[in-house]
Amino acid sequence: MKKNIAEFIGTFWLVFGGCGSALLAASFPHLGIGFVGVAIAFGLTVLTIAYSMGHISGAHLNPAVTIGLWAGGRHPAGEVLPYIVSQIAGGLAAAVVLYFIVTGNGSSIGTFAANGYGEYSPGKYSLPAAFVTETVMTFMFLMIILGATDERAPKGFAGIAIGLALTLIHLVSIPVTNTSVNPARSISQAVFVGGWAIAQLWLFIVAPILGALIAGVAYKYLNEKTTLKLPAALE
Amino acid sequence: MKKNIAEFIGTFWLVFGGCGSALLAASFPHLGIGFVGVAIAFGLTVLTIAYSMGHISGAHLNPAVTIGLWAGGRHPAGEVLPYIVSQIAGGLAAAVVLYFIVTGNGSSIGTFAANGYGEYSPGKYSLPAAFVTETVMTFMFLMIILGATDERAPKGFAGIAIGLALTLIHLVSIPVTNTSVNPARSISQAVFVGGWAIAQLWLFIVAPILGALIAGVAYKYLNEKTTLKLPAALE
Amino acid sequence: MKKNIAEFIGTFWLVFGGCGSALLAASFPHLGIGFVGVAIAFGLTVLTIAYSMGHISGAHLNPAVTIGLWAGGRHPAGEVLPYIVSQIAGGLAAAVVLYFIVTGNGSSIGTFAANGYGEYSPGKYSLPAAFVTETVMTFMFLMIILGATDERAPKGFAGIAIGLALTLIHLVSIPVTNTSVNPARSISQAVFVGGWAIAQLWLFIVAPILGALIAGVAYKYLNEKTTLKLPAALE
Amino acid sequence: MKKNIAEFIGTFWLVFGGCGSALLAASFPHLGIGFVGVAIAFGLTVLTIAYSMGHISGAHLNPAVTIGLWAGGRHPAGEVLPYIVSQIAGGLAAAVVLYFIVTGNGSSIGTFAANGYGEYSPGKYSLPAAFVTETVMTFMFLMIILGATDERAPKGFAGIAIGLALTLIHLVSIPVTNTSVNPARSISQAVFVGGWAIAQLWLFIVAPILGALIAGVAYKYLNEKTTLKLPAALE
Repeated sequence: MKKNIAEFIGTFWLVFGGCGSALLAASFPHLGIGFVGVAIAFGLTVLTIAYSMGHISGAHLNPAVTIGLWAGGRHPAGEVLPYIVSQIAGGLAAAVVLYFIVTGNGSSIGTFAANGYGEYSPGKYSLPAAFVTETVMTFMFLMIILGATDERAPKGFAGIAIGLALTLIHLVSIPVTNTSVNPARSISQAVFVGGWAIAQLWLFIVAPILGALIAGVAYKYLNEKTTLKLPAALE
Repeated sequence: MKKNIAEFIGTFWLVFGGCGSALLAASFPHLGIGFVGVAIAFGLTVLTIAYSMGHISGAHLNPAVTIGLWAGGRHPAGEVLPYIVSQIAGGLAAAVVLYFIVTGNGSSIGTFAANGYGEYSPGKYSLPAAFVTETVMTFMFLMIILGATDERAPKGFAGIAIGLALTLIHLVSIPVTNTSVNPARSISQAVFVGGWAIAQLWLFIVAPILGALIAGVAYKYLNEKTTLKLPAALE
Repeated sequence: MKKNIAEFIGTFWLVFGGCGSALLAASFPHLGIGFVGVAIAFGLTVLTIAYSMGHISGAHLNPAVTIGLWAGGRHPAGEVLPYIVSQIAGGLAAAVVLYFIVTGNGSSIGTFAANGYGEYSPGKYSLPAAFVTETVMTFMFLMIILGATDERAPKGFAGIAIGLALTLIHLVSIPVTNTSVNPARSISQAVFVGGWAIAQLWLFIVAPILGALIAGVAYKYLNEKTTLKLPAALE
Repeated sequence: MKKNIAEFIGTFWLVFGGCGSALLAASFPHLGIGFVGVAIAFGLTVLTIAYSMGHISGAHLNPAVTIGLWAGGRHPAGEVLPYIVSQIAGGLAAAVVLYFIVTGNGSSIGTFAANGYGEYSPGKYSLPAAFVTETVMTFMFLMIILGATDERAPKGFAGIAIGLALTLIHLVSIPVTNTSVNPARSISQAVFVGGWAIAQLWLFIVAPILGALIAGVAYKYLNEKTTLKLPAALE
């Protein structure tokens, strides 16, 4: 139960901080944070929760991560569904609070921070380009998560590597899909936008989960012990 | 006594570095650092003091943090008031030095780096939106502080997580309230601006402390030992 | 074999994330990430792979790094060629995927993220300026890699130092050569651009390798044990 | 001798990377890195050298740091002068290489990256404002260095705290003095600019050293053992 509360709070923070930065600060006249600031914000939501709640729930904050870790043999099957429910609920709670704040100066939510492809892609990228981007990005995100939490990786640094991986993913792919790699984040925004955002939501559920599953299987193969003698400082 | 000096110096640095970046560098023509730079600056004041004076005073630098840690059972009641007095004094000292520098090219201080809501919010956000933002942000700030300094969290990384949490908070909320989450920071600027800044100061004292108190109580509940087996690299 | 797969995946990520950020997000209207974002992206590709696959292959991701580590006595001669082949193949694979995505909104690839000097330098810097820049930058990159993985360096931090060194290198030198310091990255882009990019490719192979070889020899000299007594926190 | 070579190389990197980013990339049309990028670059020069050569020389890279550490009882008197000579020489060597590259597209060096006050301050700040800024900034820089390398501080994190402190200092003070806090950095640029830059150089030698000396004495007082019981994760 405590794990599920931690996932709820953590995913709340991911959507509140990440989508919040995009909605409130990205386009502020002259001083706005742009895509760089949004990318940093998303990454820091994960980094901060990894160090503060990782010891409670593992800090997945993302259904694709939970499924990828299950596929990689790192998360028990019985806890997959409760984690996902907690994550989606946390994301929705954040969207409610964001809705209240964003409209607090008389603005409408517009397209909120919804993900999209084709004419709803920030840079008008096609459905196939969007699908490949989301799949490859989530694949690599899970490879980094699986690798950085491997027992042979340097202790304690996983939260930095995983959080900043999400920053990197956003630095590349916001123009393509507004960046999801996380169905809970996509759902939280789409339900407030409705229409096209709901119609396109499938991609931001299917592609991240596909990428995560491939990574889970692929890392298992790479994960067999190797004989590399590491320089001391990498240990 | 040494702890109080460390809190004085640390909060001096938080206001001098954070508010100083906003006043001197944010809007510099063409090359200015914008909200991204200010957000990074605020976070790095906490990160740098956490690693250099955390072993002396714990590096709170913020009355809401001190109160939240007290509520969470992490700070003795008898040291709450001395810490808060030192923090407010350090913030005021920084404001004096900033006043001298900022006016050193003939500029006036304008609205300094004061916090505000309604017509004094950078993005004209209403009082309720401002109150919710400050409360939620300080709640999450304290959850991260309490979690990252938990004995089960990775050793040594708390300063990174807590400092960058403050960066994240600013990336989202500068447009709403100019971001406080810290009564000492707000007081230091308001006394130089007077008028509306003093009249609105209550919110930047009440909301952060409210959020911090809720977090202190909430973390206690989550804090009971869980049985999650962590991958080695997260330990 | 697993090491070579890790180098393939890691160099794929370096080119996909680094060049991808430049192609997709750097110049996005109003919100684009600029050179700062590209510099951060390149650095984070290395940081994230260092922590997730460093324990498998050492995370070189760059033929110049592999050669420099060999020259410094840190990598076996027999593994130099397989590593380089894997790195070039990974870079090319990333370029194929990037080609698909970048053209997914009807754009052409233009000059892709190719490196160049003279009229193909972003800031029109001459061949000698470009050669010196690439040589000095790769020299320092290898000095940092060799030093940060030295057994006397703090344990675990090498991935941060090395990744952020690549960010720093890009912050300085994108205007000069579009920054290579990595033949695999340069090759991956040049083959899609052809013409001038192929004709100038020699510099982005020769200069990085030259800088790396000098560093390998130089660090060996500095590497002899010194007697400095370190403060505890630097250990 | 090896220590002096390390200080030479490290200060070369500080000036080459920090001033180089300002000269080559800060004002690049549309995509330039601005003061944020320059601030990050300066900080990363120190962070990368701290982790790669800190075990050789301590990675001072700055005469004011060497003098402040001496005043704080952390550096032997007999090594102060050799360190300073190596630092100044390294800075000058970097300026020579930068001169070659910067003029490699037909540009003149203009005011190089020289420090200045009054009419030569980027934001036209007066001599007194500049003196106070440089003194306070170097004071805090040394307090952070002394604290983060204290035996009670978390092990290994000093390079992050000290490097990012220099980033923070630049985020605030580039508009005031173009930021020195380092006589070797100031000298390296002034000798190429001549005239006013030489005439104003005294401030960027005197103020940083003054701030550093005050910090050395002040930290000694704070440095006496305290009885605070730290949460485990801060140790």
